[in-house]
Amino acid sequence: MSIERRNIRWNGWGWAAQNDTVAAREEVWTWLAQQLGMPSLLATPARPLEEISLRPSRLTAAQRAQFVSLLGMGRVRDGVYERAFHARGRSYHDLLRLRAGDLSVAPDAVLYPRAAEEVMSLLAVANDSGIAVVPYGGGTSVVGGVSADAKDFDAVVTLDLSGMDHIADIDPNAGRAHAEAGIYGGALERALQAKGVTLGHYPQSFEFSTLGGWIAHRGSGQMSNRYGGAADWLLSARAAAPAGMLAGEAFSASAAGPRLTDLLLGSEGIFGIITDATFRVRPLPKTHEDRGFLFRDFASGMAAIRRAVQEEIPIAMLRLSDSDETSFLHAWSDLGKKQSLVQRLGRFYFDMRGLDARACVLIAGFEGDAGDVESARQHFSSIASRLGAIDLGRGPGERWRAGRFQGPYLRDPLLDRGVGVDTLETATSWAMLDALHTAVRIALENAIRETAPHPDARGIVMCHVSHSYADGASLYFTYIFPRKLDNEIAQWQAIKKAATDAIAAHGATISHHHGIGEDHLPWMAKEKGDLGLDILRAVKRAVDPKGILNPGKLIPS
Amino acid sequence: MSIERRNIRWNGWGWAAQNDTVAAREEVWTWLAQQLGMPSLLATPARPLEEISLRPSRLTAAQRAQFVSLLGMGRVRDGVYERAFHARGRSYHDLLRLRAGDLSVAPDAVLYPRAAEEVMSLLAVANDSGIAVVPYGGGTSVVGGVSADAKDFDAVVTLDLSGMDHIADIDPNAGRAHAEAGIYGGALERALQAKGVTLGHYPQSFEFSTLGGWIAHRGSGQMSNRYGGAADWLLSARAAAPAGMLAGEAFSASAAGPRLTDLLLGSEGIFGIITDATFRVRPLPKTHEDRGFLFRDFASGMAAIRRAVQEEIPIAMLRLSDSDETSFLHAWSDLGKKQSLVQRLGRFYFDMRGLDARACVLIAGFEGDAGDVESARQHFSSIASRLGAIDLGRGPGERWRAGRFQGPYLRDPLLDRGVGVDTLETATSWAMLDALHTAVRIALENAIRETAPHPDARGIVMCHVSHSYADGASLYFTYIFPRKLDNEIAQWQAIKKAATDAIAAHGATISHHHGIGEDHLPWMAKEKGDLGLDILRAVKRAVDPKGILNPGKLIPS
Repeated sequence: MSIERRNIRWNGWGWAAQNDTVAAREEVWTWLAQQLGMPSLLATPARPLEEISLRPSRLTAAQRAQFVSLLGMGRVRDGVYERAFHARGRSYHDLLRLRAGDLSVAPDAVLYPRAAEEVMSLLAVANDSGIAVVPYGGGTSVVGGVSADAKDFDAVVTLDLSGMDHIADIDPNAGRAHAEAGIYGGALERALQAKGVTLGHYPQSFEFSTLGGWIAHRGSGQMSNRYGGAADWLLSARAAAPAGMLAGEAFSASAAGPRLTDLLLGSEGIFGIITDATFRVRPLPKTHEDRGFLFRDFASGMAAIRRAVQEEIPIAMLRLSDSDETSFLHAWSDLGKKQSLVQRLGRFYFDMRGLDARACVLIAGFEGDAGDVESARQHFSSIASRLGAIDLGRGPGERWRAGRFQGPYLRDPLLDRGVGVDTLETATSWAMLDALHTAVRIALENAIRETAPHPDARGIVMCHVSHSYADGASLYFTYIFPRKLDNEIAQWQAIKKAATDAIAAHGATISHHHGIGEDHLPWMAKEKGDLGLDILRAVKRAVDPKGILNPGKLIPS
Repeated sequence: MSIERRNIRWNGWGWAAQNDTVAAREEVWTWLAQQLGMPSLLATPARPLEEISLRPSRLTAAQRAQFVSLLGMGRVRDGVYERAFHARGRSYHDLLRLRAGDLSVAPDAVLYPRAAEEVMSLLAVANDSGIAVVPYGGGTSVVGGVSADAKDFDAVVTLDLSGMDHIADIDPNAGRAHAEAGIYGGALERALQAKGVTLGHYPQSFEFSTLGGWIAHRGSGQMSNRYGGAADWLLSARAAAPAGMLAGEAFSASAAGPRLTDLLLGSEGIFGIITDATFRVRPLPKTHEDRGFLFRDFASGMAAIRRAVQEEIPIAMLRLSDSDETSFLHAWSDLGKKQSLVQRLGRFYFDMRGLDARACVLIAGFEGDAGDVESARQHFSSIASRLGAIDLGRGPGERWRAGRFQGPYLRDPLLDRGVGVDTLETATSWAMLDALHTAVRIALENAIRETAPHPDARGIVMCHVSHSYADGASLYFTYIFPRKLDNEIAQWQAIKKAATDAIAAHGATISHHHGIGEDHLPWMAKEKGDLGLDILRAVKRAVDPKGILNPGKLIPS
């Protein structure tokens, strides 16, 4: 297994050994309390695992023995840490529950298969015994995708696929590679890059998520303008299901009916446990450059992105923060410094150029050989310049790259001080993007105010365009709010509902790249239609007649 | 309806008014007889429609009245020409049967809906009465995709969608358009190009096939390097089924589970009748250039294509004929001239450069503004030159473009002289492409020899790479053979089986862009796997419990 589970936090984000530098900086908390309209931010520590009692495993001795006979003792684990670690994913409400010591959905055992054939054998046992099976890659789902929550079953086991991390083939000449699904992002990219190629899939969870997880939740990475999302780079995958092994087609293109591989993209483990995949790889770029641009407002930044994409400039990333996110990130990074970047920028540029609080930062990422990078940069710079943007140089880009996987680490110290933070994302057409941005922002702000623990309290709501296409783009919202400690699950649900209702009302998708899990189930009928859901249910019955695979996810019952 | 059915041949290809210039050129038939090892090629005319008796419509008066009440008299047609026209598609064996006067599968009526709601109403009637429904766009299927063959039903109606050709929206700014499914290629492109955009989907059937058909059979056009196939440009589609209207998702990207739209791509009408679609459009290129290159052999031509695609040169088309196709096309075009192009080329180039009968012509198509075209052409020329190819200039490219939709017209005069011609296509990885090319060619040559009507008879088998991807490419075979007139369906089946067995044995796809229809059913279990077929059957049951939609296509029973 590529990452020892003890080295990752069971109730928070990332490496257990990562130092938390924010907690001790009291000026941060003073400033944040002020921003949130709170008199102060009190300590709200998580319950330590030692204090939490865990229901005994409900597997019978015979069931456990069957699993042990297939895997050996060492790969059938039911210790407290293993079960707690695998109880839930890493969504905001997962963390609320884990931190409160609620392990009611912990799996009865965690199984570590090492091959597709072992997964098939384990499924046969589980199917015969009516045991639910939750597939688990890196466990970083932020939508309740891996909760070991199976109320209709007597027992539930989690299949931790991190032992399935073999790379069978990397063929730079053919531009494709084949690997087992449990491989982590870091290990996969190291192996690919050693052969001169890259998959280029860099979600924020990159260090802690797996190839199979990226496919199962139909994910996209930060460089999706260049590398596409899982739906673009996946050539084929195999998935183990009670009814058999589903082997998607591995052709560059085929007209032999609908592509079965497409059914696995976003299947979230309910149609089968993805065991291995063939995917496109591309030559490792020789160089890259990330650069900041300051736009007058969100609309002109969006216009620049749309033009860049429609003119097919080979850009790796275009990430446009709205004015709230621009202000917040600058203020945050300048906390404790004498004069903020915003203030300094203000002096030199804002007044001169007529820029004001509506200004928005865009980070553009260029990749390729030096000539490609230079030509794409020039092309994009000229678009930006014509729209009145200021070139901020490489500094903002380099700061973005240095911190590109660090964001999620901030959640835990915030949670330790009574502050909630969550993200949600959507996508729509260019024509609807501005209205959707406003509607979701207002929905979030209002819901946060309505559920706040203090009459003056308010949230910080910010957004960026994270992925863009010829015909539309995604919006990624981050919202920070003071927790209503006596009713915090309901508070989160109310906020989530307000925002997602706004998304659905605008005809936008309820998720661009996070997936559905348990959290987005209420909006699936609107998204897919009743007949659409019936079709997904029909597929489910064909591959998993007893419904043991990841119950309660993706399809509303 | 955009093309009056009387203006299209009911038992052959294309415009009824198109002049056939080949039939009268006796030097063509003398040469072809020699090539095929036949003493002579005798006249084998098709039976005229007036001589063919057609079974009376099996619709009851009540059923017919129900359809008439929905559409009016004029759009419920059961005249001889309408029923004969819609009996079958335009595959080789369809033509054999139509020309022989076999109209046993003619529909009992042809219905012309004009809106999605009308399609839903017609389906309700058909579903209640147990009448099979065959959707029909342009009817150009070459794999038996629209045969009105429904032996398990008392009656069958064909829904001709050509009256549903409204373009609801063309939005150049958003890079998308929305149209009804029955619109023909020509009408669609004229409307798009008037707004400065193009879909760029140019199958050989372009003039006579429809948007809905392209989606239903998961097609690709000649410029797929630039515009992709239906699986790339389709954003969403709606399909009317007995269980309801299936509305695919119209998002640029979404992680809300598997994309239902993908189930319609290649669904061949069995999951629903595609009524309308939203699709990506791109700016109309300012200019284009098609250019010929002569490669030493097939391998070096394939190497050039692979490099061009992997180096992401923005090329619209790369079409590489193998040496047999190169020789045949040159000989054919030079018939009756004093000295053939091959001979002339031979004098100037072949000896000098060491080129011989293995030489292969490649047509490269470039599109964009003048600078893009020039830069792509230079990039590709340098790849070709390094691989020893000769630049043949624009002449071969212009000749290709002038005749790009004319090929299918040759089939009818060949059939009139006892000669069969069919095509089949596949795709595989770069590593397998050469072996597959050889295996299918040999399988075709042997099967033609084994089923030939004369001991010295042989076929002409030729091939080109028609579509290419970073990880593989397609092969498109054309084979010409003397018909065994007393047993010509069995002859065709034996040849088809030999070639497709070779394709399946090499793990290649049984169709790159023609589809499955009835003809490829025997290989679907190998292609999709038993569980894969079960999944498709489960979807079918969910949308069409009585199985009335296009029975006998896509999924083996």
